[in-house]
Amino acid sequence: MINETYKKMLQGKSIIRELSEYATARGKEIGYENVFDYSLGNPSVPCTDSYTEEIIRMHQQENPMTIHGYSPSLGIEWVRKTVADSLNRRFGMDYEARHIFMTSGAAGAIAHAVRCVTKPGDEILTFAPFFPEYGPYVNLSGAVLKVVPANTENFQINFEAFEEMMNEHVAAVLVNTPNNPSGIAYSTETIRRLAEVMERKQKEYGHDIFLISDEPYREIVFAGADAPYVTKFYDNSISCYSFSKSLSLPGERIGYVAVNPRATDADVIAVMCGQISRGIGHNCPSSSVQLAVAKVIDDTSDLSVYETNMNLLYDALTRIGFEVVKPGGTFYIFPKALEEDACAFCNKAKKYDLILVPSDNFGCPGYFRMAYCIDTEKVKRSIPVLEKFAREEYGMKF
Amino acid sequence: MINETYKKMLQGKSIIRELSEYATARGKEIGYENVFDYSLGNPSVPCTDSYTEEIIRMHQQENPMTIHGYSPSLGIEWVRKTVADSLNRRFGMDYEARHIFMTSGAAGAIAHAVRCVTKPGDEILTFAPFFPEYGPYVNLSGAVLKVVPANTENFQINFEAFEEMMNEHVAAVLVNTPNNPSGIAYSTETIRRLAEVMERKQKEYGHDIFLISDEPYREIVFAGADAPYVTKFYDNSISCYSFSKSLSLPGERIGYVAVNPRATDADVIAVMCGQISRGIGHNCPSSSVQLAVAKVIDDTSDLSVYETNMNLLYDALTRIGFEVVKPGGTFYIFPKALEEDACAFCNKAKKYDLILVPSDNFGCPGYFRMAYCIDTEKVKRSIPVLEKFAREEYGMKF
Repeated sequence: MINETYKKMLQGKSIIRELSEYATARGKEIGYENVFDYSLGNPSVPCTDSYTEEIIRMHQQENPMTIHGYSPSLGIEWVRKTVADSLNRRFGMDYEARHIFMTSGAAGAIAHAVRCVTKPGDEILTFAPFFPEYGPYVNLSGAVLKVVPANTENFQINFEAFEEMMNEHVAAVLVNTPNNPSGIAYSTETIRRLAEVMERKQKEYGHDIFLISDEPYREIVFAGADAPYVTKFYDNSISCYSFSKSLSLPGERIGYVAVNPRATDADVIAVMCGQISRGIGHNCPSSSVQLAVAKVIDDTSDLSVYETNMNLLYDALTRIGFEVVKPGGTFYIFPKALEEDACAFCNKAKKYDLILVPSDNFGCPGYFRMAYCIDTEKVKRSIPVLEKFAREEYGMKF
Repeated sequence: MINETYKKMLQGKSIIRELSEYATARGKEIGYENVFDYSLGNPSVPCTDSYTEEIIRMHQQENPMTIHGYSPSLGIEWVRKTVADSLNRRFGMDYEARHIFMTSGAAGAIAHAVRCVTKPGDEILTFAPFFPEYGPYVNLSGAVLKVVPANTENFQINFEAFEEMMNEHVAAVLVNTPNNPSGIAYSTETIRRLAEVMERKQKEYGHDIFLISDEPYREIVFAGADAPYVTKFYDNSISCYSFSKSLSLPGERIGYVAVNPRATDADVIAVMCGQISRGIGHNCPSSSVQLAVAKVIDDTSDLSVYETNMNLLYDALTRIGFEVVKPGGTFYIFPKALEEDACAFCNKAKKYDLILVPSDNFGCPGYFRMAYCIDTEKVKRSIPVLEKFAREEYGMKF
């Protein structure tokens, strides 16, 4: 009586994982330093010294019963208060501890937020290009994910398509800014307009429509980018955060849900998350990790390497003749492929040991993603290879 | 459009939590040392020095990118292998890494196991007295929990009631041994007979029936107790473990699913868990905690205090005249109340600052649970108070 739904999912393959495995295998043949592996979005900088020092101090000095004791199901009260205070300081919000729910990273945050504000059968809209895991995150909750086609001009929102797809079954809209895979941050103008449409549709349909904002790249924003705090613009909003990128702690699975204090039922959403977690087997992130992260709440790893890498790649790609929108943050760039079939394009790139991810799974065919969370020295070495590839395979002249 | 199912759950109150809060408040009035708080099942011994030393060493010496890097969704391969090897050594099993799935404690393990082997609408049977969180764990997965009445003679299984309740919709049986709240370990004879009934029913109904074994108290077994490893007795079995009690790390949320290599689809169940985790927002326990626990896999905290406390309480309770079955493990004891209404009984005990949990929520009315994971000195001081309570309120003579 094995569950067939989950068993069938085993047949699905992750193209990103396949490419990453290919890169590792190829690295064993020719040396990994010779594989230009742009496949995986894994932070390439260490966590802060402050985090490491705090974990060591805590384990040396604190009572083990305190640091390893059960956390309340919503998270350790002091940690929730510290998160709220930090957000208030940085973004001029008025969160209190009761609006914060500690989670196992952004995935855990989205799993709870989606269940809070939808019932099975409801629709959630997201915008292409989008992180493909949104599919299982949403669909296995019982809600249905629908994808608004991309605005390929600048990867802001395609509002025409969005308004067309809005209907009374839409219970939530899921945004990701700065965006994986496009690297684009939604501008103040985009978020204002999104809020305006959603306010209008709430009135038209006579029910709440929640804005779920997935923000793991919030701290990786480049010079000049307009990347406002989404929650400020729309009352019925829930922010989903992860420290995996800002503190380079992806394996520690630590993040939170922050409920806009002006949202409908703002006072019960975090408590509901606690009930949801009873049903899905989540019971807080690690207590010691909660405590250590709260102690270094406003620190970030040295994230400047991502901007350095972005500028190197953006300059090279535009020089070669790629059509590409300059990223405002993250560690991704999303150029148009040099032929219609992005899979064919990325396959050809493999011959040059360039590992690029075709965009089909991101809901926006014809593009490719480069995850430039790698050494700057390797980015530099990859540029002549990119040039050779474009010249030999596509006759690009530059 | 707040989800009403979860919102309604907010009205439910946890009697254990209420009693624990009462004990804390009362402690502020009269000093917590004067409150005999037997409400909460929180380990009362520190984690092992070996664990603390390993966490410190790792953070001092290892590359942060390694210890905090993304864990594969099934858990770190070396950790899974270490768990398998340890179980094989200790219980004569033949697990391989591919049978192990790392989880956020036993709650996470059960959430995955239940979804693997049931579909919505299927029944799962468990045996009273039972851990009340099984309700949300099972029911929010879409399966339905049914509770087989207790065998109050010895708190082994009530086989007559079990056979009556078995039907073709039963997809799994969920056991917890040693048991919260009874403290009883199922004997070899009990587990043999359980396996025999289940084998027979599998044949009769023509489908698999899985045995899900919840084993957080596996390492807390007292002298003379017959507490065999459940999985050895039944092929279609899944063991759900947590290190929260054995290593006293409840807040770290670390455990695993171990799939019997002889189960139907044994090779895909752990991989299915990885797919399920995409849908419920679980993405592995903390990477550094996984690594540290694996390094000290066969260690346990000093658990002997629980047996000391149990013997003190068992002797006192029987001397006073309570009807009580001697626990074989855990840190719980489950005597019969001195009146039919266990809530009234526990309310009267509060006057003596004895905090006892009535058994109604455990599916076995008329009893009470004492969680004796507290200082032995306090257990000793509580005995004259128990005597006074029984004498004054119920005229017990001893």
